[in-house]
Amino acid sequence: MIDLHRSVGIDIGGTFIKIAVVWNDGRVVRSTQIPTDAAAGPEPAAARILAAARGLMADEGLTAAEMRAVGMDSAGIIDAERNLVLDAPNLRAWENHPLAARLAAAFGVPVYLENDVNAMVYGEWCCGAGRGTRHLLGLTLGTGVGGGLVLDGRLYRGARGAAGEVGHVSVNRFGPRCNCGSFGCVERYVGAAHIVDRALEALARDTRPSRLRDLAAQELTPLVLSGAAADGDAVAAEILEETGIWLGVALAGLVNVLNPERIVVGGGVALAGELILGPARRTLRERAMQVPGGSVDIVPAALGNDAAVVGAALLALSRVREP
Amino acid sequence: MIDLHRSVGIDIGGTFIKIAVVWNDGRVVRSTQIPTDAAAGPEPAAARILAAARGLMADEGLTAAEMRAVGMDSAGIIDAERNLVLDAPNLRAWENHPLAARLAAAFGVPVYLENDVNAMVYGEWCCGAGRGTRHLLGLTLGTGVGGGLVLDGRLYRGARGAAGEVGHVSVNRFGPRCNCGSFGCVERYVGAAHIVDRALEALARDTRPSRLRDLAAQELTPLVLSGAAADGDAVAAEILEETGIWLGVALAGLVNVLNPERIVVGGGVALAGELILGPARRTLRERAMQVPGGSVDIVPAALGNDAAVVGAALLALSRVREP
Repeated sequence: MIDLHRSVGIDIGGTFIKIAVVWNDGRVVRSTQIPTDAAAGPEPAAARILAAARGLMADEGLTAAEMRAVGMDSAGIIDAERNLVLDAPNLRAWENHPLAARLAAAFGVPVYLENDVNAMVYGEWCCGAGRGTRHLLGLTLGTGVGGGLVLDGRLYRGARGAAGEVGHVSVNRFGPRCNCGSFGCVERYVGAAHIVDRALEALARDTRPSRLRDLAAQELTPLVLSGAAADGDAVAAEILEETGIWLGVALAGLVNVLNPERIVVGGGVALAGELILGPARRTLRERAMQVPGGSVDIVPAALGNDAAVVGAALLALSRVREP
Repeated sequence: MIDLHRSVGIDIGGTFIKIAVVWNDGRVVRSTQIPTDAAAGPEPAAARILAAARGLMADEGLTAAEMRAVGMDSAGIIDAERNLVLDAPNLRAWENHPLAARLAAAFGVPVYLENDVNAMVYGEWCCGAGRGTRHLLGLTLGTGVGGGLVLDGRLYRGARGAAGEVGHVSVNRFGPRCNCGSFGCVERYVGAAHIVDRALEALARDTRPSRLRDLAAQELTPLVLSGAAADGDAVAAEILEETGIWLGVALAGLVNVLNPERIVVGGGVALAGELILGPARRTLRERAMQVPGGSVDIVPAALGNDAAVVGAALLALSRVREP
């Protein structure tokens, strides 16, 4: 990229707002975090965001003319054309609030709003583990299972900005009820709390020794399971393997429909790495059709917690060029 | 559309090749069918296609200058950039044959090759039941379950031209083995032969009277089931309802991922109409997430057997304009 310049990304989480100055090749120059105080709504947050961003910009000598646009992302269903949060359970007071327009007036450049998982996947696509592909499926594995799609070299949002909810693909018509109201969704097997529930059930019926039995239930997390499995705990390893298989069943169907070049997996649960991705990859190979299954790989995300803020900034720059 | 002109579509099936002169608004002017003789390969077929197409063109006074491009489609995995059949079980002798290039030289205009289900879905999108949408999911229900995607107003092919295989989305990890090698694919429940198998099983265990018992097994088809169900046969109605539910489970997941505006369903099994689409729609409403599920409908295809030949011709014209 010849025309190197910097911009600002703003990642609005339920607890913290992350603000970063990033190069348009994805490098993060400097970043800071401020509390969201979600319940107080976006008005006081807007003032804090502006103060923090202006502080970073002053430190870096970054001008509005150089940055051209600011990117912002949050959880929830986003109207990307009008830059509004439509529906966000953890940011109720922010729904339909013209925060982006307000910040745009203050910054003197357009502010574009995007869904947080879309921003993360776009960031990975531009500058992370999805770089160089034309068709990318991205997932975040955490409490929930989120997803985003870059298709034909563009972020794909669908008719109402709701595309990419790969966590709510049913892989078992007769499976347990999911939070979304459906049954047997992949999130119902791969979401963090469900992994832990399966571990507790396994410990109750499995007679093999496991160091997990020494833990209180609330100490059991996917990361603790990963550590135990890496140290040879067979019960923990089987729980994570089963998690990877469920993920692989869902991915096989998605690969047959979308024929992506690559699948990038991030989020806290993905820190289990090959303990989950290995069986997911094996299941994908066993179950996907030959052409789409043979030409796709599953790789861990590369940008960590910076993915969304980088993606939001780069998406904003892409929208200034071709709105 | 101001610039009305005509073109030619060629739909290569395993048994017949359909050739049609179509307006670029989708109206079919005139069409004919010739035998494929698939085993003899594409060389003799090329001569027959040319003779038949030239006959139609002469009858209509259609010139190469007016038609600009010719569209062709066949089953199988297609390399749309090189206009080659890569993999087609019913057209083995046609794989990697430069039929499109040969016809292009003879016609004096480009000949573009596309997958048959993609052509059908594109035809429905341009001029049929998907008209006016920006994001369309199309399915054909027959022996197999095929699919195609128009996303952001363009046919989506994926990395290797293999996208759209919606029949091979698993809706039951522990379900029966599918022809594709996976388990519990929606095709394994909704494909014509599997519907009939379920009907035979139901007749063996269900004690209610059913006129289906008077039929030999080979007389039982989805269309016969539809007729019986429409006449009040409860066993037949239940089999079709169950078929619609399986379809709806798969569609709910696809709607959550793709957030399409509309779903168009064609193919022989879709002739059962509301007997299958009704339960599919109900299941979709119950299982899809609120935003994507609330803004999509399932409608029957409108162009019947003309969809592929129309879609192939219109796709070719779109590729002349923006290759």
